[in-house]
Amino acid sequence: MFESAELGHKIDKKTYQKDEPKLRADLLDVQFDLKEASRFPVVVLINGLDGAGKGEMVNLLNAWMDPRHIETHAFPAPSEDERERPRMWRFWRALPPKGKIGIFVGNWYTDPIVARVRGAIKRPELTQSVDEILRLEKMLTDEGALVLKYWFHLSKKGQKSRLEKLEKNPRTRWRVTKHDWDLFKDYDRYVKTAEEVLGRTSTGNAPWIVVDGSDENYRALTVGRHLLEALKKRLAKKEDKTTRISAAPLARALDGRDLINSLDLAQTLTKKKYDAELERLQGRLNVLSRDPRFRSRSVVLVFEGNDAAGKGGAIRRVTSSIDARSYQIVPVAAPTEEERAQPYMWRFWRHVPRKGRMVIFDRSWYGRVLVERVEGYCSEADWMRAYAEINDFEEQQSRNGAIILKFWLAVSKEEQFRRFKEREKTRFKRFKITDEDWRNRDKWDQYQSAVCDMVDRTSTEQAPWVLVEANDKNYARIKVLTALCERIEAELKKG
Amino acid sequence: MFESAELGHKIDKKTYQKDEPKLRADLLDVQFDLKEASRFPVVVLINGLDGAGKGEMVNLLNAWMDPRHIETHAFPAPSEDERERPRMWRFWRALPPKGKIGIFVGNWYTDPIVARVRGAIKRPELTQSVDEILRLEKMLTDEGALVLKYWFHLSKKGQKSRLEKLEKNPRTRWRVTKHDWDLFKDYDRYVKTAEEVLGRTSTGNAPWIVVDGSDENYRALTVGRHLLEALKKRLAKKEDKTTRISAAPLARALDGRDLINSLDLAQTLTKKKYDAELERLQGRLNVLSRDPRFRSRSVVLVFEGNDAAGKGGAIRRVTSSIDARSYQIVPVAAPTEEERAQPYMWRFWRHVPRKGRMVIFDRSWYGRVLVERVEGYCSEADWMRAYAEINDFEEQQSRNGAIILKFWLAVSKEEQFRRFKEREKTRFKRFKITDEDWRNRDKWDQYQSAVCDMVDRTSTEQAPWVLVEANDKNYARIKVLTALCERIEAELKKG
Repeated sequence: MFESAELGHKIDKKTYQKDEPKLRADLLDVQFDLKEASRFPVVVLINGLDGAGKGEMVNLLNAWMDPRHIETHAFPAPSEDERERPRMWRFWRALPPKGKIGIFVGNWYTDPIVARVRGAIKRPELTQSVDEILRLEKMLTDEGALVLKYWFHLSKKGQKSRLEKLEKNPRTRWRVTKHDWDLFKDYDRYVKTAEEVLGRTSTGNAPWIVVDGSDENYRALTVGRHLLEALKKRLAKKEDKTTRISAAPLARALDGRDLINSLDLAQTLTKKKYDAELERLQGRLNVLSRDPRFRSRSVVLVFEGNDAAGKGGAIRRVTSSIDARSYQIVPVAAPTEEERAQPYMWRFWRHVPRKGRMVIFDRSWYGRVLVERVEGYCSEADWMRAYAEINDFEEQQSRNGAIILKFWLAVSKEEQFRRFKEREKTRFKRFKITDEDWRNRDKWDQYQSAVCDMVDRTSTEQAPWVLVEANDKNYARIKVLTALCERIEAELKKG
Repeated sequence: MFESAELGHKIDKKTYQKDEPKLRADLLDVQFDLKEASRFPVVVLINGLDGAGKGEMVNLLNAWMDPRHIETHAFPAPSEDERERPRMWRFWRALPPKGKIGIFVGNWYTDPIVARVRGAIKRPELTQSVDEILRLEKMLTDEGALVLKYWFHLSKKGQKSRLEKLEKNPRTRWRVTKHDWDLFKDYDRYVKTAEEVLGRTSTGNAPWIVVDGSDENYRALTVGRHLLEALKKRLAKKEDKTTRISAAPLARALDGRDLINSLDLAQTLTKKKYDAELERLQGRLNVLSRDPRFRSRSVVLVFEGNDAAGKGGAIRRVTSSIDARSYQIVPVAAPTEEERAQPYMWRFWRHVPRKGRMVIFDRSWYGRVLVERVEGYCSEADWMRAYAEINDFEEQQSRNGAIILKFWLAVSKEEQFRRFKEREKTRFKRFKITDEDWRNRDKWDQYQSAVCDMVDRTSTEQAPWVLVEANDKNYARIKVLTALCERIEAELKKG
């Protein structure tokens, strides 16, 4: 991995001074094109050995280009806000919007590599981190981001002579601390671990570029030119998304039976039973929400369902049993301008709760595999890969302590018709029926297929779907509350 | 202040059960209108004595209305992120967008009152906090927000018997702790302080509504009905902004001399001198940026100036001397969708830096009193009040440790013309001249007046303006760097 980077590459001062102004002008030019087009974001990762010129390179990139359209992030020790969320949350927050360049120094590679070198994590944990990184980068590039990864290398000999040289000079002696020599002792282990991680994460869409860091001029021109070419090439491409593959169609059961049409929607609950059950369950939920064990957990609820299936009413039965200060409801509608400039999942990452809190999504990231799929708002490749992205998103939250539960509220086509008609008559304008609601009915079968695929592909142990027969509102609400109480109890018991 | 709230108001159960469903339906209706119109945000403050029903009221409001369009915030102890910013930052972050209701329990009133009762702050500090609150609320209502403030009161006797009653019942005994009785001991001091604060902050646009909290039914209907009426009244009003007063015109100097035309724009610096000075100043700035005292401070720079005055170039001379990981440049363009749904200053509060960091605004909140004023994008009342709002914003940051410096880069009309022409010829497309740039020239005199007013009204000791003669780029850049170094040095010396 690092063989070529130990050859001692060099560019003499004269060549550098001749080439640099042209490179600089070209970079500014292409950066302007990037901004004008605002079609995709650029994520630049700067990694490598201390002393191999990472910091200098970042400053140089900011000096060469227009720093107003570069966002440089260093990611020192995580803050309180960050520690209470999944590891990747802080990086999601820092993603550049389309048209901008985000430079990440000390990024998602830093912690896993350092922890492994220090022996703080074992091999399986490193593997897990690498897998997580691969999924993140795949998602980013699939969404159209240009991900550029530069690794700055120094040979062991080069590293040693660098430290010695700094120590000899009285003006630079202060820059060498015991810490630096301690790091040097770990050189072999560090490089070996890095090699392993780089090997596994050098993918077709986001390969590593290893740079010999021993000569200032050489590394500057190398990275500058590579960045220039990468930007030019990408801007010349018409398509931003990388996955234009045509997925194989999903299979349908030959006998026509599916998860939804197997539901017994006729189930009901009498008013009397409902009232009694409701009081009991709301009391139970209230007690659970104040459980001290809950302080190190969070709750993420997703409500999806047919139009007019009663999501709002079910949500209110949940929230009315808990303190308004401990939950947040996120109604998901069309994305805002800022959200459209980011990868699809960005707008949901924004709302990942901290410990001790509950977030209820009224519609959610499942829009990708439901309405966007059926209405053709995204390509087949986009929604096909979304299942894995969603599972990954939920798994990260679950590992961080989130209790996740997802509800699909199902009504029959007839019951929906009855409710639409009823709503058209009611005095509450909020129950307005739009043309879109009627149009969606025309695609009933397509939506049903999409729902079945969604449940099959994203119902996991850590984030299960609960299918709720919702023709009878009483029955549905009690089923939701029961499932929620049971889930929280089971999870809190696990500790 | 609390006399009427100690009368022991009551609503019997029967009346409540009769009135509540109607109120509830009306509230839902008006909430829907609010959302549909999305013309203004609603900020509901819930304050008062413990045990007077604050928490219950918040939960009730969430149960009565659609909780998906209510954001409830509790504001417990501030997080690390919050502690490193001005006190009001966390509240700015939580402001609801237009069309939504934000319920703030434990808000900007809580800390000052509690701190004063405990003797942690003296009277002048309380007065300062109250002034800060008055300015914030004035700004919010001026921007169109509906601010509703409810204070839940209990008489001393009522408070005592409440605690005793809870203690007597074995099922509720756990709710009364020593802390509650300690609080009770402070009753008189608490109420006295509250009375003083409420008296000063009960303004025409955001008066306090004091509610007798002793009877559950009474307080619920009181707040519910008041909220309903307030929303209805406000929705019926055509104008959202409250300040449609016509301001008296600003005076012009009779002799025609002003700050800008008094500048000697002909000042220059030779290339040789420039190179030497630049190196020296950048070195000095670099050392300053790494000063350990800087860890408890932050730097906020504002760059404004005529079109083509060289802001970008000046900014790059600043940033190229400091580590890219320690600053952020915020280029200010048209506001995004999310920003347009908030008060004007919201989009700048977003970027207030934490300690140890530098933020450079390329154009800024001064757009309000420059382009928005001259082009008529906001009303006269809006930009007239902006001077005070801006001074307040900067003062809050300064008190929190920010070192603030603002640059106006001035070029003559002739020099601007020369640069526009030059830019039209240059190969760098980023220097494109738009029709707007040419149009702005037609209003040269109006802009000049606006600049003079801006400097007169917002150049303060804690956030001074530096007027930079920028016909000669070398001269301008050195003046900027010199002023910056001197300012940071002087501030760091203060400690």
